[in-house]
This record gives sequence, structure tokens and C-alpha cells, in this order.
Amino acid sequence: MYIILVYDIEEKRVGKMLKLCRQYLNWIQNSVFEGEITEVKLRELLHRAKGIIKTEKDSIIIFSSRQEKWLDKTILGREKNELDNLL
Amino acid sequence: MYIILVYDIEEKRVGKMLKLCRQYLNWIQNSVFEGEITEVKLRELLHRAKGIIKTEKDSIIIFSSRQEKWLDKTILGREKNELDNLL
Repeated sequence: MYIILVYDIEEKRVGKMLKLCRQYLNWIQNSVFEGEITEVKLRELLHRAKGIIKTEKDSIIIFSSRQEKWLDKTILGREKNELDNLL
Repeated sequence: MYIILVYDIEEKRVGKMLKLCRQYLNWIQNSVFEGEITEVKLRELLHRAKGIIKTEKDSIIIFSSRQEKWLDKTILGREKNELDNLL
């Protein structure tokens, strides 16, 4: 399936979360990721994320769709470039 | 249509952008909004957003879907409460 993941996480935990998400998804904005992922891999990602976040303070929202074609994407302003994704 | 809007905007412009987005959409996370919107209203929102952001520094991404039911939403951790939305 295709997912969009957005997080709002306290600064001290954000590095770990970024690193984790980038193992599964494409980083498209500061705290936004997207990509194709299997249900098994998504469960694994969420399980690992739960080990990082503080549920009373941090927040992760996942939008999922069976098919990417059901979603259109429009970007206004700066696009994340390849260099960012390699950092 | 149903949209998800995420932004990454420099702090000095973020207040204006937040205020603008809340006139059209529901605020669900720090820099994330969602909601039903007509194409005309979305064009209006984007036009007004262009007047706020600096395109070389800021970024707005809009995911749109013809129907909300094509997307599932999962929340991990803290949920934005009603109070936040009233502020």
C-alpha cells in the first residue's frame, strides 16, 4: 500500500525517528514521508516507532491508501532535493 | 475533494500560514491540515498561500483525493484535542 507519514516529535527524539522512517519511506518534507510499503513492514515500522516516541507528547499520523494513483500531489515552493535525501 | 496539506515554513511566516489554513481546513497536527474542500476554494487557498510563503525557502505539499474513504488514518501518540483547534 501507499502511505503518507507525518510526525510531530520533540527535538531530542526527532533524529532517531527520522533515521527510522528513512529506512522504510521517502523523506519529502521536514517531518513528512511517503512511499509504498507492505502491511508487514508498516507494522514493523510502527512497532519500532512506539519504542522511540513518548505517546503523551509526540504524535505520528499515517494516511494509507491501497493505491498511490488515488492521490494527487501538488508542491508549492521549495522541493526537497536529492542531496537532502542523501544526507 | 478531500485534501491533506503539510507545510514547512520559516517561523516568522508560520503564524500567518496557520491562520490562513484554518479558514479552510481542520488542523490535525503541528503543520498538518485535512478536510473537504472544493476546487475553487483550494485554488483560493493556494493563491493566498503564495502571498505568504517565500518559494525558495518554504514548502507546502497538498495530497488530494476525490474521496476521503480512499484514505485510512492511523494516529500514534498524542491526538490534537478540541481545545487546540479552538485556540
